[in-house]
Amino acid sequence: MKIAMVGSGALGLYYGALLQRGGHEVHFLLRSDYDAIMSNGLTVHSINGDFYLPSVSGHTTSDTIGTVDLVVVGLKAFANNCLQNLIQPLIAADTHILTLQNGLGNEELLADLFGPERVLGGVAFLCSNRGEPGHVHHLGAGRIIIGEYQSLDNLRLERIASVFTSSGIECSTTGDLKKARWEKLVWNIPFNGLCALLQQTVDQLLRVPGCRKLVRELMIEVITAANAQHLNEAISENYADSMLEFTDGMGVYKPSMQIDREEGRELETQAIFRVPLEYGRQQGVSMPRTEMLVVLLEQGKSILST
Amino acid sequence: MKIAMVGSGALGLYYGALLQRGGHEVHFLLRSDYDAIMSNGLTVHSINGDFYLPSVSGHTTSDTIGTVDLVVVGLKAFANNCLQNLIQPLIAADTHILTLQNGLGNEELLADLFGPERVLGGVAFLCSNRGEPGHVHHLGAGRIIIGEYQSLDNLRLERIASVFTSSGIECSTTGDLKKARWEKLVWNIPFNGLCALLQQTVDQLLRVPGCRKLVRELMIEVITAANAQHLNEAISENYADSMLEFTDGMGVYKPSMQIDREEGRELETQAIFRVPLEYGRQQGVSMPRTEMLVVLLEQGKSILST
Repeated sequence: MKIAMVGSGALGLYYGALLQRGGHEVHFLLRSDYDAIMSNGLTVHSINGDFYLPSVSGHTTSDTIGTVDLVVVGLKAFANNCLQNLIQPLIAADTHILTLQNGLGNEELLADLFGPERVLGGVAFLCSNRGEPGHVHHLGAGRIIIGEYQSLDNLRLERIASVFTSSGIECSTTGDLKKARWEKLVWNIPFNGLCALLQQTVDQLLRVPGCRKLVRELMIEVITAANAQHLNEAISENYADSMLEFTDGMGVYKPSMQIDREEGRELETQAIFRVPLEYGRQQGVSMPRTEMLVVLLEQGKSILST
Repeated sequence: MKIAMVGSGALGLYYGALLQRGGHEVHFLLRSDYDAIMSNGLTVHSINGDFYLPSVSGHTTSDTIGTVDLVVVGLKAFANNCLQNLIQPLIAADTHILTLQNGLGNEELLADLFGPERVLGGVAFLCSNRGEPGHVHHLGAGRIIIGEYQSLDNLRLERIASVFTSSGIECSTTGDLKKARWEKLVWNIPFNGLCALLQQTVDQLLRVPGCRKLVRELMIEVITAANAQHLNEAISENYADSMLEFTDGMGVYKPSMQIDREEGRELETQAIFRVPLEYGRQQGVSMPRTEMLVVLLEQGKSILST
């Protein structure tokens, strides 16, 4: 299958490398890593075993890629205003678009731009960070859950899942993409938010009882808002506890938003906080801690910019 | 009147200097400023006009002060475990103790240690900071409201108020000290907390609409908890708006807790946050934003100490 990775950060480089190793024709849209990867290839440092791709098809523009079978979107959501230009040259009649981006609102945007029938979404439970140019570090997990944006074609969904699984990526399918997205937010909202705000790793938050309690309270706010969204099946409060335990197992981990803040980059506050807050508000769900967290994150940004 | 200032920070130095200039025999218990003040006196830089006291009675221990008529307590509340030793040598049969400390729980402690009949409390609306040793900066406001801890003696209360007013300090009396304390918390909880957490001045918070809204929401939580404490008269929600306007007038102001955090000192989280939260909890009032704020402040402390 011919695949374009649009947004080749820690997520795009990692999954793209596995797909290429799995025998697919993968094209990476690159920015900062372009020179390093074209000269020296791509190195994956993984808990499942390191590997090295000496030859990678890197591009600085989508025009040189041409049309593809599958576009995998791993761009930070704050750059979504670039998606039209980045993806348009890749689209043929039967091209599918799978967004693995964080937060809410990404499928909707892609559906508006390129038609809902092309769009699939997925959530990735992946601990990975970029290293020096041309290197990506896979620190833990890696499972993907994918679903149809409009439940049109279950066979297609299974076929795309098999592209991942046959490349060594654990990938399951769901009939309720909305639920999967909100479940991911149960993790992203407290951990991305608090780690970025406090510049602390997940273990530093979880070992202080008062802060662990705050993490759980944020999770419960997200679960309450999720369950007001007419999911096929409700998310149980136990999910919060299982996410706490899952995160205990991560050890010293910096979520991507912590790194973004540390390096002075823009934060994905819109997709991860503002859209979920608005969806909660529309259903009459109050999320005081979640709202306070994004206000503090945005206020912190105003420090950096003044 | 013979007066001891116990805790000679920005508040103690400023009011003590005015009381001395007003003709009272003022003794300052000093630590870091001792050498500078004994050598060069005390300089007050005030919006109401600078003045200089060439000769000040400074002490490094209460033993050399002897007993006094009035003890004014301006110590940071996290040092309350020192109060017994600092105040005991100052106490004669008819010594009064007036605490101008922030937060809740200070009168109770003094009453336990020295008898409730001696104890008065007050809240100070004062913008002041310490400068170099021997210098204090009065940046704005300065009004004090004082009240009896147990409403025993209104004449005494008026007499002590007149000590302040005759020294040029605006001082009114209240029959509801508890209400005055909670009203001060309506300011202290959002501004001390958020300025310390974000390392931003009050004007930086107030000019961002989302953050101004958060400040007001915190104020409303405090007002709700206050009104569950059986005050003589409820605090109106309009009080939040008048505090916002009052603070707009302060301009670029760093609350004391912001400076304490900046300089790596301990924060008064117990008196300003934890005791009010507990009093709220006892009356069934939930204060999610206030609790989140103190958790974040304490979590920030854990960064500094690891």
